[in-house]
Amino acid sequence: MALIVHKYGGTSMGSTERIRNVAKRVAKWARAGHLMVVVPSAMSGETNRLLALAKDLAPSTLTESYGRELDMLAATGEQASSALLAIALQAEGLESVSYAGWQVPIRTDSSYTKARIESIDDARVRGDLQSGKVVIVTGFQGIDDQGNITTLGRGGSDTSAVAVAAAMKADECLIYTDVDGVYTTDPRVVPEARRLQTVSFEEMLEMASMGSKVLQIRSVEFAGKYKVPLRVLSSFTPWDIDIVEEAKSGTLITFEEDENMEQAIVSGIAFNRDEAKVSVLGVPDKPGIAYQILGAVADANIEVDVIIQNLSKDGRTDFSFTVNRNDYAKTFALLNEKVLPALGAQQVVGDTKICKVSIVGIGMRSHVGVASRMFRVLSEEGINIQMISTSEIKTSVVIDEKYMELAVRALHKEFDLDQTPA
Amino acid sequence: MALIVHKYGGTSMGSTERIRNVAKRVAKWARAGHLMVVVPSAMSGETNRLLALAKDLAPSTLTESYGRELDMLAATGEQASSALLAIALQAEGLESVSYAGWQVPIRTDSSYTKARIESIDDARVRGDLQSGKVVIVTGFQGIDDQGNITTLGRGGSDTSAVAVAAAMKADECLIYTDVDGVYTTDPRVVPEARRLQTVSFEEMLEMASMGSKVLQIRSVEFAGKYKVPLRVLSSFTPWDIDIVEEAKSGTLITFEEDENMEQAIVSGIAFNRDEAKVSVLGVPDKPGIAYQILGAVADANIEVDVIIQNLSKDGRTDFSFTVNRNDYAKTFALLNEKVLPALGAQQVVGDTKICKVSIVGIGMRSHVGVASRMFRVLSEEGINIQMISTSEIKTSVVIDEKYMELAVRALHKEFDLDQTPA
Repeated sequence: MALIVHKYGGTSMGSTERIRNVAKRVAKWARAGHLMVVVPSAMSGETNRLLALAKDLAPSTLTESYGRELDMLAATGEQASSALLAIALQAEGLESVSYAGWQVPIRTDSSYTKARIESIDDARVRGDLQSGKVVIVTGFQGIDDQGNITTLGRGGSDTSAVAVAAAMKADECLIYTDVDGVYTTDPRVVPEARRLQTVSFEEMLEMASMGSKVLQIRSVEFAGKYKVPLRVLSSFTPWDIDIVEEAKSGTLITFEEDENMEQAIVSGIAFNRDEAKVSVLGVPDKPGIAYQILGAVADANIEVDVIIQNLSKDGRTDFSFTVNRNDYAKTFALLNEKVLPALGAQQVVGDTKICKVSIVGIGMRSHVGVASRMFRVLSEEGINIQMISTSEIKTSVVIDEKYMELAVRALHKEFDLDQTPA
Repeated sequence: MALIVHKYGGTSMGSTERIRNVAKRVAKWARAGHLMVVVPSAMSGETNRLLALAKDLAPSTLTESYGRELDMLAATGEQASSALLAIALQAEGLESVSYAGWQVPIRTDSSYTKARIESIDDARVRGDLQSGKVVIVTGFQGIDDQGNITTLGRGGSDTSAVAVAAAMKADECLIYTDVDGVYTTDPRVVPEARRLQTVSFEEMLEMASMGSKVLQIRSVEFAGKYKVPLRVLSSFTPWDIDIVEEAKSGTLITFEEDENMEQAIVSGIAFNRDEAKVSVLGVPDKPGIAYQILGAVADANIEVDVIIQNLSKDGRTDFSFTVNRNDYAKTFALLNEKVLPALGAQQVVGDTKICKVSIVGIGMRSHVGVASRMFRVLSEEGINIQMISTSEIKTSVVIDEKYMELAVRALHKEFDLDQTPA
């Protein structure tokens, strides 16, 4: 008898028909003898519907209490879907009870709309499990020490599920979603993309931040911190699929070095075309220029990803970085109007038609030459590299957007990602 | 500076445009120097939408925890509309904060879906009012002593508003709704129907129970118990109507005998065509027959309104009562199959094409002959009376449904209800 946490995303909870299927699946697990805690998201579309109403009413200058009220509002979506799931489970003949975040309670800080979980009191949930109930814990939300409702930000239900699993020392946390696991790359770009049976926590972090969007990145961090065995799997398999088969499906996120020893050098290819590149050319090369440029950008609340400073030549250097494409115009104007004159730089140039392609693999740590293999492949395909950024388990390049698919496919093949490992 | 409670119904909160109007109206009152507490209902349609989802998932045999989950679900509607109103008030430049029932807290018993308020702790609300905030208290809901969310039943937001006004000793509780007050009768039936400037608490109780539907009957009982000055008025006047004029509009519900001394004998004509009549004929007249008949009906959870037992003749009597029209078929079958043979009665007959018409007036207590005036008018119109029921301030008759409008109009005229009192 294991203690299992299931998390179901908004699409899986998208209609009463789907909620019924979730209930049947959970019932199957409960009847197999497991203690079940379920964390559902709001029904798909509901959070957007609520926030659109708020946006329509929002004050032009946001008040101090605006975030508090947004959280009061948005938290209702998960409360409703949790109650509906409890009802559906009762229809399946299971005793079940749902708890809003404040009822557990899941205690958070007071950072409305992006609160962080501080502690979870699992006494009430544990008591219900012991009395034979399936317990539904409302995702995405908590309560601060003033008794205000808080929410954890978009995708926060993943974090709720992992946090509950961590607090209760669950045997496994299963994240049911609309994909059936983590792939070597996006199958829409590379049809040969293969589902990974396991992926290391660190690789998952790099994949998630690159836009794989399978799991909220904070939930992965949380799982890593508390070593919560985490599995991503599909909620669109038939609910009555054999439970042993289901328990092995999807992708398991691992934390043990040992398990990764035999892994491929590169586990996956991530990509992202949401970025734009900006360069400040002819910057007088003296101490503090990085701060002068990026400080101004940060002050304008613009997030920066890849940063490159070229070698200096004749006392001047070029400084480039990428930002989200939505921030490009704002960044460009800021640099041109404020930073350029202040620095005495020569010119600001930019490009929105770029993309970032990364190879990710924990094996890269112990294998030299992986990055250069990447550069060779791109060169053989005639793809010019505009920027390079590396970390211990990732190498990213910025290239012309039009070569993205080509680059991803070539790299996927080069690192044998279409082959099942021996 | 007065402490005022405003309550807005679902129609008044039905869209962001309407919520904005509510905010502007509340802002006007706050800027006139009043301490404002606002109790909004869910946006119109929202509670029905949520309950339809629950109904679709409901277990065939309702479980013990079903009601608890229904309340978890339904309570989200008011929480969302409260947060939206807080946001709209912030857009109007007012500091505002919304509280769910459990945050106030509004403590109730554990009768899910029809909980009763036990106490309200107003410290938090009072603190906010003193710091200059408009406080929004989520209607319709509370928390039981186990920390579960409860709801007060349909129309419960009226009761929430009155209870908050009572707990805080508010100077007045204004119920904004889609009618502009309490009328002598339904203006759709009698175009000459007149809005009452005041109506006594007891009259309002009789009107509400007769289906005037202006106020939830429990809220009127609550107002009576705690002597909360209660005004029903329209939320569809322009929000920027002069506040002095607005404060006098609608209908004030009064509790002081003195104020009613000069009132008309009959204040209003109520009617109801939701009922059906059932008669058990030829019942052997012996002790216990009323219990044998109505006990069986009550056991089947059917509510009975008017009850008549005829004079006995030859050791047998006829026993008639009215039930809601929706319960008619069930009642008829029950009587025929179970009660008739057990009693040795002769026949069960029934009629769904009836209606109940009542004259209501606190002045009836001190005036004889009011009921006979009613009977004379009906007789002059050729309307046969099938059943009669009286209370201290009300006389009701059951008549053929097709004469309803005729009866109401004739009675309205007879008691000079179209004339403004001197």
